[in-house]
Amino acid sequence: MVLHEDRLFPAESAVRCIARSLYASVRDLPIVSPHGHTQAAWFARNEPFPNPAMLFVQPDHYVYRMLYSQGVSMEELEIGQAEMKNPRAVWRLFAKHYFLFRGTPTRMWLDYAFQELFGLEERLSERNADVYYDRIAEMLATDGFRPRALYERFGLEVLATTDSPLDSLEHHAALRESGWRGRIVPTFRPDPVVDPEFVGFAERVRALGEQTGEDVGNWAGYLAALRQARARFRRLGCTATDHGHPTAQTADLSEAEAARLYAAIVSGQADAAEQELFRAQMLTEMAKMSLEDGLVMQIHPGSVRNHNRQVFERFGRDAGADIPRATNYVDALRPLLDRMGNEPGLTIILFTLDESTYSRELAPLAGHYPCLRLGPPWWFHDSPEGMMRFREQATETAGFYNTVGFNDDTRAFLSIPARHDVARRVDCSFLARLVVEHRLDEDEAFELARELTNGLVKKAYRL
Amino acid sequence: MVLHEDRLFPAESAVRCIARSLYASVRDLPIVSPHGHTQAAWFARNEPFPNPAMLFVQPDHYVYRMLYSQGVSMEELEIGQAEMKNPRAVWRLFAKHYFLFRGTPTRMWLDYAFQELFGLEERLSERNADVYYDRIAEMLATDGFRPRALYERFGLEVLATTDSPLDSLEHHAALRESGWRGRIVPTFRPDPVVDPEFVGFAERVRALGEQTGEDVGNWAGYLAALRQARARFRRLGCTATDHGHPTAQTADLSEAEAARLYAAIVSGQADAAEQELFRAQMLTEMAKMSLEDGLVMQIHPGSVRNHNRQVFERFGRDAGADIPRATNYVDALRPLLDRMGNEPGLTIILFTLDESTYSRELAPLAGHYPCLRLGPPWWFHDSPEGMMRFREQATETAGFYNTVGFNDDTRAFLSIPARHDVARRVDCSFLARLVVEHRLDEDEAFELARELTNGLVKKAYRL
Amino acid sequence: MVLHEDRLFPAESAVRCIARSLYASVRDLPIVSPHGHTQAAWFARNEPFPNPAMLFVQPDHYVYRMLYSQGVSMEELEIGQAEMKNPRAVWRLFAKHYFLFRGTPTRMWLDYAFQELFGLEERLSERNADVYYDRIAEMLATDGFRPRALYERFGLEVLATTDSPLDSLEHHAALRESGWRGRIVPTFRPDPVVDPEFVGFAERVRALGEQTGEDVGNWAGYLAALRQARARFRRLGCTATDHGHPTAQTADLSEAEAARLYAAIVSGQADAAEQELFRAQMLTEMAKMSLEDGLVMQIHPGSVRNHNRQVFERFGRDAGADIPRATNYVDALRPLLDRMGNEPGLTIILFTLDESTYSRELAPLAGHYPCLRLGPPWWFHDSPEGMMRFREQATETAGFYNTVGFNDDTRAFLSIPARHDVARRVDCSFLARLVVEHRLDEDEAFELARELTNGLVKKAYRL
Repeated sequence: MVLHEDRLFPAESAVRCIARSLYASVRDLPIVSPHGHTQAAWFARNEPFPNPAMLFVQPDHYVYRMLYSQGVSMEELEIGQAEMKNPRAVWRLFAKHYFLFRGTPTRMWLDYAFQELFGLEERLSERNADVYYDRIAEMLATDGFRPRALYERFGLEVLATTDSPLDSLEHHAALRESGWRGRIVPTFRPDPVVDPEFVGFAERVRALGEQTGEDVGNWAGYLAALRQARARFRRLGCTATDHGHPTAQTADLSEAEAARLYAAIVSGQADAAEQELFRAQMLTEMAKMSLEDGLVMQIHPGSVRNHNRQVFERFGRDAGADIPRATNYVDALRPLLDRMGNEPGLTIILFTLDESTYSRELAPLAGHYPCLRLGPPWWFHDSPEGMMRFREQATETAGFYNTVGFNDDTRAFLSIPARHDVARRVDCSFLARLVVEHRLDEDEAFELARELTNGLVKKAYRL
Repeated sequence: MVLHEDRLFPAESAVRCIARSLYASVRDLPIVSPHGHTQAAWFARNEPFPNPAMLFVQPDHYVYRMLYSQGVSMEELEIGQAEMKNPRAVWRLFAKHYFLFRGTPTRMWLDYAFQELFGLEERLSERNADVYYDRIAEMLATDGFRPRALYERFGLEVLATTDSPLDSLEHHAALRESGWRGRIVPTFRPDPVVDPEFVGFAERVRALGEQTGEDVGNWAGYLAALRQARARFRRLGCTATDHGHPTAQTADLSEAEAARLYAAIVSGQADAAEQELFRAQMLTEMAKMSLEDGLVMQIHPGSVRNHNRQVFERFGRDAGADIPRATNYVDALRPLLDRMGNEPGLTIILFTLDESTYSRELAPLAGHYPCLRLGPPWWFHDSPEGMMRFREQATETAGFYNTVGFNDDTRAFLSIPARHDVARRVDCSFLARLVVEHRLDEDEAFELARELTNGLVKKAYRL
Repeated sequence: MVLHEDRLFPAESAVRCIARSLYASVRDLPIVSPHGHTQAAWFARNEPFPNPAMLFVQPDHYVYRMLYSQGVSMEELEIGQAEMKNPRAVWRLFAKHYFLFRGTPTRMWLDYAFQELFGLEERLSERNADVYYDRIAEMLATDGFRPRALYERFGLEVLATTDSPLDSLEHHAALRESGWRGRIVPTFRPDPVVDPEFVGFAERVRALGEQTGEDVGNWAGYLAALRQARARFRRLGCTATDHGHPTAQTADLSEAEAARLYAAIVSGQADAAEQELFRAQMLTEMAKMSLEDGLVMQIHPGSVRNHNRQVFERFGRDAGADIPRATNYVDALRPLLDRMGNEPGLTIILFTLDESTYSRELAPLAGHYPCLRLGPPWWFHDSPEGMMRFREQATETAGFYNTVGFNDDTRAFLSIPARHDVARRVDCSFLARLVVEHRLDEDEAFELARELTNGLVKKAYRL
């Protein structure tokens, strides 16, 4: 067996024993996945996944960034190709380098899928690459491995996708009409039409105007178009927005200033500072709309996107070369909070790629402002050590109840159960330590294990 | 029982066993509290505390910031009211939300007081709120719960308050004359008369002039007034100053530059940069005076005060909405250290709200400069995990002997023994791990446990 | 005995048991020391070390910075004196203050040398200072304690020194010709001739011109001179360069811009920003040369050198008063990476004094760019807790294979085996925890223990 029943539980026997009991009480709870990057089309079409390499290697930048860092080329891995020429060769290359993932969460997620879904119980290596490939390929061709069947098998209760305001959401609509009982909901991610540095921004804003029939040539029309787009998302089950800005900067301009700034932006003449100010103002505008329409806001700042110029030029966005940068929240969020921080009807979930802010800024902010909640460890920090640091550094100031459970945030559909399983195990391990150190009673730990798995996420995301 | 004898000790049995022995050797040592926010008036008047809500909820922003973050309003909690209209209702609200404190040090401090002082042994909840209220109210009315009796019962050896240079210190004087053997000493906190952004700064400086008979219209007179104020504090037992600046910036201007800057400041015409420069220069001036008069300096930088504008406007300062900001020490302290860093007669105790500076800046600075010492984890970081991080991140570079023991830093008088108890348990746990990992001999650990509890603090604060 | 066989292994018995086995498998592997500050002259001359104080106290700023921080003067310790007047008095002073090192790695390194090399098994203190002094002095006079004998006794396989481009490398040449089988190699550290703020920069550049016969009055000649110097180092076994810049800033100027900047620099008229830009450009130039000649690049940014002005003025560079500063890599390295980040033939090893960058910037960068590797914890962080934090914070994103084993980085030759021993124990402890938490198989842990000790370092440094 590749996976051990006690994996991730602390070694000390009393702690492990309680961690095990806590985990047993939550392991079979349904999965609530309020933030991720799977495709509604998969479930609408319900076609089989093509092959092991296209399923496990190609879409997962966690996988190929590591291979690339050790000299495997993106071309050899056929990254960015709509169809693979030689998926078996890609798979063999991956298997040969599987040892590189030792000590990483990627390894844990993959092993889980290999064993739990495909019954593969020997560690992947160059030697057994073909055995793996054949087994996975064979099973992917069966009905039990189609997207909807997997959704059900995974025990998903709800799964959120992430979508551009320009997306037709046709697959979401089709799913609603299909009668299938799975709950797939869109998330409103307006970056392409609120970030002037987004490639194709101007055209996209124009398209938004066409789509909504609003005059996006002026500020009021632009806001009205966004309001319409949000309403369209809401009608298809959307409960949240998401904002991936370079910084957490917010602004609170007067109506007239904002209109002037927008005019500069749509003219294409705005400089970098104006572009940043526009993004900042748009976070506040989105918060105002959230107060009206009830959509929960998620802010994901601090990623330097497409850091590797050559890789970006050849392979485009999201090719594994985004790098975090130090992020300030205390000053950046102030304009928004000054205006709406005390609104009980508003929920803003904060994420970070800068762990030094957990105890310094985020927990103090969330431990005071009624509208703020802390999102789970994100991206590079969504790992056993990273999750434990989050609990250790945020809980004492923000408590558990200002956090919102787990996000799998993944493009890799098959990793969803593994990721939630890791989160449950780590949370139970943290709670178990608190119990053994007599910092929490056992009955409280059981209640909290359930809240961290299932309760807080539904409440925070209004699901 | 709410509290377990082994609370906070690590789970592993060998470590726990040594932690227990170390703790047993220091648990009954007197409490030295060199930095805090209790009121001398309490001890001078020695009147009973009014009621449970005014004792536990109203003064403690650790308590109400958490309640506020989860939607309980400040009005419902009667925060900022001189007298409470309905303390029992406030108490019930607090009890109903007591579960929010799970995993926080506040919970641990409160449980300690409930059990050890009031004999309450069932966890507080909505259900037993009235039982708690009645028991506490009843006991507060007894003589054993008056401030002086509690001081003695807590085993306090010395307790420092924090006071404005304008404070008459009448209660300190009264205490000295009362014949009571408790030792309550003031701390000189000149922020109101050295920080131009302090509300009412100009009037306060004028008041300082009147109080001391110095001409504060010029730089020399202003410094002379501060010198006099320090001398007045020293006569009432003061051994330390405290400085709560937004940053750790220091400056070393020439006499003429400083005089010009002061003229700009008192004219009310100085801009933000000049105000920052003035605060910076005043840290250096205070260090010069410390070298003369022997007062130990404490620097507490890095807090963005009154972050929540609406809460500040309605409830004033210190209402639970201060948020830390990233803090630089390495460049900021240089002007002061260039001038006085090698003075063996000077002691400067550094605090931080930015834990990333422990290993990066603070331990390297304190591990070199003779005048520098590291204060204990402050505010949000004064928690079991926070204290452990401090030891883990500072000790290897600064050693134990460049630290100064524990500060309870509290407004909540009844939490003092609990806070010191937590600190002793965490320090003993850290030492026990070093012993079991053969990084420290057992006899050394016993000696260090005593130093960390009692020895280093007296030496550093000259108590 | 001062040292316990199980030192540094975690307390929990299953983890300790596996850590012990892993350690047993690597404890006797040869030491590869690719980065340090020992002197080739010691081995070329092979003379006995003079006395205990000159061996253990005088060269080791880890030792005397701690003594200095607690009021022992540099004069009393005879720091900076070519010959000591009273080494026994210095030794007694050191022994009297030995307790200050409790909880520090220095204590562990010293105890190791005392016990393993000199057979001293009672803890050093004021009481036994003379016993220690006499024993060590006596043994230093024997042939077994000459540099070459110790090199062999330590099981060194290769030892790199750090050298200025102006260094004649005569001792390295002499060693090569001596027939001795030890492998001592130089490292090319061009700071004195590429950092315009280096004391004596202009003269040093002139000297470089004279040494190489190139016209350093212009940019092309300056680069040619550096190329020649690198070639000279390579001929004596050098495989790596090292760069100790204040920041990690890189630049990618055009040929013409770079030539103009160089002209401003050599004229002595450049301002601070131009000096920084020049250093930035020189990192990129060095990377270009590395791509040509195969020397591995090490970048050590983020140290504020000579922070204590008075100590610097009286005792010069490297007197224990360097303090880390927050360091940005994500923006700073971009110009260099934009140009050469995807070159498989280039290796750049990154170090930091800012631990907050491990998970935020360094692991994400090294987990993507083929040319980047992570150096081990450096300086203040080269300690048991620091090493463990590095593994915990870097591994999940960068994996093990983007790291490069251990550097002892020391001036204290006798501490080399102790330092490597600590690193091996900490790595084995980390691996053992992963095994017991079922995050890594046992056979993988054994393979990794060997890689972390011996394999990765040879590959990364091309040794």
